[in-house]
Amino acid sequence: MGWFSKDIATMDDLFVHTLRDIYYAEHQIKKALPDMIEKATSPELKSGFETHLGETEGHIQRLKQVFKQHGVAEKGVTCPAIDGILKEADEIAGEVDDKQVLDAALIAAAQAVEHYEITRYGTLVAWAKQLGRDDSAALLQQNLDEENATDKKLTKLATGGINRKAA
Amino acid sequence: MGWFSKDIATMDDLFVHTLRDIYYAEHQIKKALPDMIEKATSPELKSGFETHLGETEGHIQRLKQVFKQHGVAEKGVTCPAIDGILKEADEIAGEVDDKQVLDAALIAAAQAVEHYEITRYGTLVAWAKQLGRDDSAALLQQNLDEENATDKKLTKLATGGINRKAA
Repeated sequence: MGWFSKDIATMDDLFVHTLRDIYYAEHQIKKALPDMIEKATSPELKSGFETHLGETEGHIQRLKQVFKQHGVAEKGVTCPAIDGILKEADEIAGEVDDKQVLDAALIAAAQAVEHYEITRYGTLVAWAKQLGRDDSAALLQQNLDEENATDKKLTKLATGGINRKAA
Repeated sequence: MGWFSKDIATMDDLFVHTLRDIYYAEHQIKKALPDMIEKATSPELKSGFETHLGETEGHIQRLKQVFKQHGVAEKGVTCPAIDGILKEADEIAGEVDDKQVLDAALIAAAQAVEHYEITRYGTLVAWAKQLGRDDSAALLQQNLDEENATDKKLTKLATGGINRKAA
């Protein structure tokens, strides 16, 4: 972002900026997931992260379509929010030795990531509709639905077994 | 956090660590809100942020009670996630000139903050129950309920008027 000018003049600019923010975030998540897969002990958690890695690739592809619909270059902008969330996930995982406690920490970290994506996609869907871009809204809604489903699966994993074993 | 030892051995340690994380986050949010109140143009948004500032003080008080129930010192640990979310909120607000676009950006930023709190309180409530601390779970649930309500109010503000005017 430019520090000496106000770069965002319209809702359309704000939409494109936020699209670039989540595009960057999805790429960072894609980079972070293999490490989380490696650290996870529970087979269900490991396979849940693997599934999500595949979905993340799909989200990136949908975002590319939205950039195309909007006629703007597909590129990311640094997103300090996801950088902070992933940094925290990495730090906490480094602090935990016990495998079941580590799984609980990994689930919590993954849910923080999901909630960041849920809020951004929720905002983007609303803005796309208001800008009269129902085509973009439909694609973004698909990403939102998958993030919501992943968050619910993680809650189920957490309350259904992993945390209980570790407590 | 200590970089040369694994400081989190049990679910109880993980619970206390995460409690300190959200305690720090609530304090940072309390510091950031006055600036957001000042920047907001819509009277409903301004008053929504003011209400939330009062609630944030209440959340901090409840967290102090949870620390007491747990018999551990009330203190924060640096939380890179909330630091990143608030940094991004500050940056984006600096990029926007138009008052209605700025309101839309402020709502999106505030919802990212709410979602971070929602995920952390959701995790803490689950862990408190699993640790047999229903007293702590009840207090944390009250914070969670208020964050959820704030997020819903922000969505209503966004879709009910502010974004529509700015688009």
